Amino acid sequence: MTPDSRTWTAPALPPLDHDAAAELRRLIDGKAKPLGALGRLEDLAVQLGAIQATTAPRAERAAILLFAGDHGMVEDGVSAYPQAVTAAMVGMILDGRATINAFARTVGAEVRVIDAGVATDLPRHPSLHGWKVRPGTRSAVREPAMTADECAQALACGAKAVERAVADGAEIVALGEMGIGNTAAASLLLHRLGPAALEDSIGRGAGHDAAGLERKRQALVAAARRWSGDDPFEVLRQFGGLEIAAMAGAALAAAAARRPVVVDGFISTAAVLAGVRLQPALLPFCIFAHGSAEKGHRLMLERLGAAPLLGLGMRLGEGTGAALALPVLRSAAAMVRDVASLAEVLGQA
Amino acid sequence: MTPDSRTWTAPALPPLDHDAAAELRRLIDGKAKPLGALGRLEDLAVQLGAIQATTAPRAERAAILLFAGDHGMVEDGVSAYPQAVTAAMVGMILDGRATINAFARTVGAEVRVIDAGVATDLPRHPSLHGWKVRPGTRSAVREPAMTADECAQALACGAKAVERAVADGAEIVALGEMGIGNTAAASLLLHRLGPAALEDSIGRGAGHDAAGLERKRQALVAAARRWSGDDPFEVLRQFGGLEIAAMAGAALAAAAARRPVVVDGFISTAAVLAGVRLQPALLPFCIFAHGSAEKGHRLMLERLGAAPLLGLGMRLGEGTGAALALPVLRSAAAMVRDVASLAEVLGQA
Repeated sequence: MTPDSRTWTAPALPPLDHDAAAELRRLIDGKAKPLGALGRLEDLAVQLGAIQATTAPRAERAAILLFAGDHGMVEDGVSAYPQAVTAAMVGMILDGRATINAFARTVGAEVRVIDAGVATDLPRHPSLHGWKVRPGTRSAVREPAMTADECAQALACGAKAVERAVADGAEIVALGEMGIGNTAAASLLLHRLGPAALEDSIGRGAGHDAAGLERKRQALVAAARRWSGDDPFEVLRQFGGLEIAAMAGAALAAAAARRPVVVDGFISTAAVLAGVRLQPALLPFCIFAHGSAEKGHRLMLERLGAAPLLGLGMRLGEGTGAALALPVLRSAAAMVRDVASLAEVLGQA
Repeated sequence: MTPDSRTWTAPALPPLDHDAAAELRRLIDGKAKPLGALGRLEDLAVQLGAIQATTAPRAERAAILLFAGDHGMVEDGVSAYPQAVTAAMVGMILDGRATINAFARTVGAEVRVIDAGVATDLPRHPSLHGWKVRPGTRSAVREPAMTADECAQALACGAKAVERAVADGAEIVALGEMGIGNTAAASLLLHRLGPAALEDSIGRGAGHDAAGLERKRQALVAAARRWSGDDPFEVLRQFGGLEIAAMAGAALAAAAARRPVVVDGFISTAAVLAGVRLQPALLPFCIFAHGSAEKGHRLMLERLGAAPLLGLGMRLGEGTGAALALPVLRSAAAMVRDVASLAEVLGQA
């Protein structure tokens, strides 16, 4: 690509605070517990502190940013559900009756929906940012999913959502999505940016049978043949989707604001994979919430060198895995804040 | 053993409600999500309903019952910490300054401490049940840890704690413990009740170095040689501990009251292993919260045919793993209660 076709550049990210991290490690080692006995929660507390540049990490106020968008590839048979389900599910989410709402209420987190590119108009709602870049992507099977300008707008839309959430007090940014057909786009991103063999990148998504999976496979083979590059911005714009580009922009903006990014499943990780390829310094700002049952997620995490916190066999999206990880993050932060030192206990023993 | 040496018999347990389970499966399959997309949370919701005999399972009000006791084997070098740390840590827990308090506050659960057998007197405290059976077990290396009567009293102490918690509204019972030396007793239980080779059952506990681990190993070899049976009640009384027998009694009483039992790590699972060997119908009432990093826990779970929910590399005890699993249980219950049906979504699509 030529420089002037790209209207977007990756933000510079702040350095991790290694002094805070070292001090946190010392504090945690001195807590009233056997050395290392909290396993990954100790590493999490240190990571939170390094990101937030503090020895008192916080994870109470979490915003789940749920990006919605449609995919032109759905016309080419990549999804088991019709495109209109995206808007219908967004309606359910805004009504508070989707799984993410049940989980978010349970763990105490706010859900904000961002319309980055749903095919139909959505009604106004206080929890909805109506920042549609365009009504769905073009079909990546036949043409670029977005123009460079649209892709840059989608990235900026994600950044704007984070800036709002941070201005409203979010200490943690969690990513979620809704978009019929978006596992197809995520598979192409894994294929090109992992990289990974296309065959290993394709899974059943929301519920293909064997025939549906074969249709999806053929569509993705055609898309991959149509364009062969691996520049991360171009891969995003070629294959989409609008909500995935927005999530990549959101992850980068969260890191720029020193907010830990809680990454959900296959689609969210694909967005972060694009974000990391655009700006490698993004990776240590990310916390991978869970390993999805969608084929390809394990491979995607391996390519990122990431180990997810939870493994519950989920493959729903919406940010549901990210929501379940929030109590783990908060417990890690509470341990640093509230637990006595071993010296105190031994002094009383 | 002769029948009259045992003053305790395992309670009969109610049947699981298979009708409720089948109806829940149907409800969950009809929710606005791909079939099976919530993985283990779907199974959890069904399990909760089968235990609670309802299609509206609940997991909001959880009592973490933390059983404390000391172990005579500590004189024989099985622990890296002195015995007095048990009482000092119980003091910290009652002060609300231990890890379990930080986690319980984070997830919204009550912590109740039961003194089943701490070696020293504990001050009165509103969150403490002072039901000490005796001040620590005898050393299982040299003699039976408890008399049959003491073991029965410890089992009854656990049952009483559950009855109180249930009377106070607990919908979920979670098990935790504190007892210097109790990984040694748990290893002997795994060895004899798993069963498993003693060598595979022994781990570093709260933090042995190589020399400490060898001392622990030698002590446990001597204990295992001293008594060779495998009757579950006798194994409990021979090897201890008081808090472990109390947890076994608590698990059985919770199941009898149709309360799901959230099992923590190595020690809690050892107690449940004893409970299951005493009354096999206990097993489906148990939810295994996490896989501990303590060597032997994986083997113990395998022997029970159990798959833990979380795997965070923790090995602290206190009920910390159980606490972290509570939001997962609650999310499963909230999904059943709050999520719209797929038919509604497709009707709007």
